[in-house]
Formats: sequence, C-alpha cells, structure tokens
Amino acid sequence: MMKTARRQTLMVAALFCAVVFTTTVAKAADPLPSWNDGAAKQSIVDFVKRVTTRGGKDFVPEPERIAVFDNDGTLWAEQPMYFQLLFALDRVKVLAPQHPEWKTTEPFASLLKGDVKGALAGGQKALVEIMMAAHAGMTTQEFEQIVKDWIATAKHPVSKRPYTEMVYQPMLELLAYLRAHGFKTFIVSGGGIEFMRPWTEKVYGIPPEQVVGSSIKTKFDMSSGQPVLMRLPEVNFIDDGPGKPVGINEHIGRRPIAAFGNSDGDLQMLQWTAAGNGARFCLYVHHTDAEREWAYDRTSHIGKLDKGLDEATQRGWTVVDMKKDWKTIFEPAKK
Amino acid sequence: MMKTARRQTLMVAALFCAVVFTTTVAKAADPLPSWNDGAAKQSIVDFVKRVTTRGGKDFVPEPERIAVFDNDGTLWAEQPMYFQLLFALDRVKVLAPQHPEWKTTEPFASLLKGDVKGALAGGQKALVEIMMAAHAGMTTQEFEQIVKDWIATAKHPVSKRPYTEMVYQPMLELLAYLRAHGFKTFIVSGGGIEFMRPWTEKVYGIPPEQVVGSSIKTKFDMSSGQPVLMRLPEVNFIDDGPGKPVGINEHIGRRPIAAFGNSDGDLQMLQWTAAGNGARFCLYVHHTDAEREWAYDRTSHIGKLDKGLDEATQRGWTVVDMKKDWKTIFEPAKK
Repeated sequence: MMKTARRQTLMVAALFCAVVFTTTVAKAADPLPSWNDGAAKQSIVDFVKRVTTRGGKDFVPEPERIAVFDNDGTLWAEQPMYFQLLFALDRVKVLAPQHPEWKTTEPFASLLKGDVKGALAGGQKALVEIMMAAHAGMTTQEFEQIVKDWIATAKHPVSKRPYTEMVYQPMLELLAYLRAHGFKTFIVSGGGIEFMRPWTEKVYGIPPEQVVGSSIKTKFDMSSGQPVLMRLPEVNFIDDGPGKPVGINEHIGRRPIAAFGNSDGDLQMLQWTAAGNGARFCLYVHHTDAEREWAYDRTSHIGKLDKGLDEATQRGWTVVDMKKDWKTIFEPAKK
Repeated sequence: MMKTARRQTLMVAALFCAVVFTTTVAKAADPLPSWNDGAAKQSIVDFVKRVTTRGGKDFVPEPERIAVFDNDGTLWAEQPMYFQLLFALDRVKVLAPQHPEWKTTEPFASLLKGDVKGALAGGQKALVEIMMAAHAGMTTQEFEQIVKDWIATAKHPVSKRPYTEMVYQPMLELLAYLRAHGFKTFIVSGGGIEFMRPWTEKVYGIPPEQVVGSSIKTKFDMSSGQPVLMRLPEVNFIDDGPGKPVGINEHIGRRPIAAFGNSDGDLQMLQWTAAGNGARFCLYVHHTDAEREWAYDRTSHIGKLDKGLDEATQRGWTVVDMKKDWKTIFEPAKK
C-alpha cells in the first residue's frame, strides 16, 4: 500500500514536471518573431543549439556562455549622431548660464548659437571639450541622476521618440533568447560606461556590472565627511577598436563565445571572440534600410563598416541585412 | 471525475513541492557551522534576514544584493607575506636562466641567492621590478596558464599546504550563504586581477567577471596573425585603499550593500558601502589567533588594521575575533 502510494506520488510529480516542461517548450516556439526567416536568423538558432546541446561536441558550460554586444548601431540607433553626443549638447545648454565665458569661447559659442557643425569643426579637441564639460566635475551619483533625468525626457531629433524607444526590437529578442539559454549578456561599447548604466537594466535587461564602456577617471573624496567619487576631466579608458578586447579582458576576464557589432570599431572584438577554441559566433548588423532606419556603411562618418564587412564575408560571419532580415526594427511607439 | 483527478494531481504536486521545500529548509538549518554562536555570527544572520524579508522596511531586491570581499587576509591568509609575492619570487627563479644579467643586478641577485629580505630592501622600486618581471612580457593566455600551473603545485612555506587550502572555511560558508540568499559576491582585492581569476571560481565560487583587482596594462596585438593581449610592464590600476571604491564603481557600477575586509586598505571600501541608503553591513576580520593562524593588527607591515579597527568600533561594524568567533579556520587537509 505504502509502496503504491509512493509510486503514484512520484508518477504524478513526474507528470507535473512534464507539463511544466511542455509548456516551456511551447512558449519558446518562435523566440525571434521580429526576425524574418533566412540565413541570419537560422545561423543564430543553429549556434545556440550547438553550444547548449549537452553531450554534443560543441557544448559550452553555462558559465562560459558569454555574449558581448556593441551598443551604438547594434542595440540602438546611432544616427544622425551618437546619442551620447546629443546628451552632451543638451547638457552644455543647461550648464551655459553657469559659464558666461562660453559665449565667446569655442566650441561652446557656436554650439549655444545652435551651430553644431561649427562647434564640431574644431575636431577631436572640440569634441573632448564638449564631452568633458558635460561629463566631468560632479560626483558619480549626481551624474547618474543627470543621465536618468535626460533619458526620461529627451527626444530623438528625427523620430521625436524617447531614445530608449530607438532600440532594435530584433536585438531585444536576441538578448532575451540568449539569456533564456544560459548566456550572460554584456554590453561592450565605445560609449560612456556611466552614461549607459543608469538605463541598460530596464531597457536591455543588462545590469550595470555587465556593462563595459569608455570612462573618465574618478577620485575617492572624503572632504565633505561623506565619501563620494568625483568625476575628473581626464580620459581613463577608450573602449573602442583594439580597446574592446582590452576592456573585455579587464571586465569579464574570459573570452566571449559570441560577439555582435555593426562597425569597424567592433572588428577587434569579433576577431578576439572568433580566435577562441570551440564554437564561436560573430555577427555584424548592416544598416541597409534607409526607409525604416538609416542606410550607411563603408563611407559613413558614424559607424563606418568597411574592413569589418570584408572580413565578415571572408570568414563567413553572419551579416544581418536590416532591410531584409528584420520584420520589425523599432517597437511600436508606447501609447 | 475529471475535476477530482485534477485536484488530486495538484494536491500531490503541491505535496511534492512541500517535500522539496522542507528538505531545503532542513539542510539550511545551520548555514555557518564553522562560526561559533555569538555577536558576529548573529549580526550576519540578522542582516541577511532584514534585506531578504519581502515586505520588510529593509528589503533589497536581488539585483541590488551586491557583496564585496577583500581577498588577502579576508578570504585566504596573507602571512608570512602576500601569496602573490611568493608567486613572483618563485617565478623569478624559473625565469633566471633566461636572464643571466640578474646574477649581478638587484633585486634579482639577492633573490636568487635566497636572500628575500635583501632583495626587498630596495623598497617599492625593487618590489615593482620583481612583480613586473613575473607578471609582464607574455600574453594574457600564457599568464593564465602560468598561474594555473603554480597554484596547482606550489606549497605555503609554513603550512606546506597548497595555497588554495589556505582559505578560511567560515568565509567559504559565508559566501555560499549570501549567494543562497540572492547575493552576487565579488572579490575587490589589492591583488592582481589576473592572478586571482584562474582559480577563484573553483575555490570561492566567484567567476572571473566578479573579480576586481589591481592590473597592469595590456595591448591588443595582431602581428602574429592571431589576436593576443600582451601584458605590459606598466601599472594600469591599483585597487587598494581609495582605489577600491573606484574599482567597485568601474567594475560593478552599483554600491554594495555588504563589504568584508581585514585591513586599513579596505577602509574606504567599507566607508563607501556604509554610505549608501538603506540597510548596510560592514565586517572586519581581526587576526587574533596566533596558534591556528596569525595574530597581527595595528603595527603589522602586512594587513595593517589600525584606523579601520577604531572606525569599526565607533560605527558598530562587525569585528570578527578569529580566535573566538571561528570554530574552524582552515578546512582539514585533503587526503
């Protein structure tokens, strides 16, 4: 009697588990609904299957399933200019009353007259001055709040939508799909690490500790009696091009098995990823849709994709043709 | 009939869950068996209960349960000198045949004659030369293998045990206890980030991406046709004292709610942690057991604990008296 009852319990428990399992599988039927069927989508699904099939020759244990994503042009748009630069331009306007000298000093003078092109004509030096004015001289906590306030209210100059709605729906699905298969997803961006962290968890499901980016130096200061980290107008690290593998090594400490980018600035990250042992996946997003997004590649001043496109073709990396491969680009506007 | 069958299934499934739950609770009865009952142990258990009690005023959502641990003297021993320095000394001996000039150049000449004290008499400069000789000039992948080989075979000069057995059993239990309650555990050490990463996952259950430490610069290099990161003889970051909050901010990007250290070099990390809003926990390990470990604090040249001890007392931080609070210090030797 006891034995039978126990057997029944176990059988029903097993049935219960089977039901849960079946439901999960059914739900996962099309994890990438914004991707059109085709080689790009198939290559992703095939790779995930290979590295997650227990006992298969390409199986990768969960802790090693590291996937790295560029941000600008890969997870969200980057036209007509990097969104962080648009943030800096907005910030200079906000700070102008505290800096009367800017009225007669470039690049600020042009900028405050609305002449962005003129301001940026000063090249790298002008750019650094604008970026430092916007990003340094406050505590990390203050800067976090500044970014949070801006991202909650600012609108994209062309679409007039919040910047957090300028993210690519197919990539959001891809992030979720990888995480559902035991991947740990990281951002590895040339953008500012502290410009991204205040919103990446909410928008991408990527927590601050999984964001790698460029940074300025900070300094611990107890002079007010309370410990703060002051943001200094000095470059600490540029997480772009050959800096991306350096940033990956420093922050993650193991080689990714999958890397996603859209420009030559991501090439070394993809090379570094591809050079590891075992199954690897490299993908370039190619901006080919002038109607729904933007079309640019080899000659663009932003997100130039030239060497990377050649290498991707030679090495058989996945190249996403946005126009052809993506059913939806941006999520429908929130009402 | 159908309804009854369904109800039965659900009831048995619920029973199944209850059994699993009860087993888990039973197992967790004393999660810290190597800690003697007392104020230190109680303060840990109380804090964890406060921040994990849903609906309680001190509840902290899981993603924000960040706990940071110093390594040397907090998770493993640091006497008679930092283990990483012992690694460097061993390494210099291995490399000596490739450097005949070391026979007549300090600090190497003294070191190779077995006169460690003489070698280190050259102060900071001598130390940096030894550290760079041992840590730079190879790829990150080569260095990882060097560390793995050393840690697998080297023995502690006093205990004659592998260094990975010089870890504190009560702290291993604490790490596991925190993780079981939704904490993400990080190392934040003055030691080398790439010296720790090859073994922290196995020894502490802390993956490489949750290790923060000091580093030298690396450089991406494709000159051999294969991408490598070369380790350069140049300091990148010193993760000690006021550097610890900087490293925490850079790598983790949010403020920890719990911090564990053993020396004045951890004080700023504890101050930074304590200064956040909501429930916070700071703990110092005080080395008081000359018999089972070592006894040292205010005047020690390694792991000096002076200002930190005063501040801990003033602020009511937990101070672990190793002799009194720890039933076991090291795990029994593996046969």
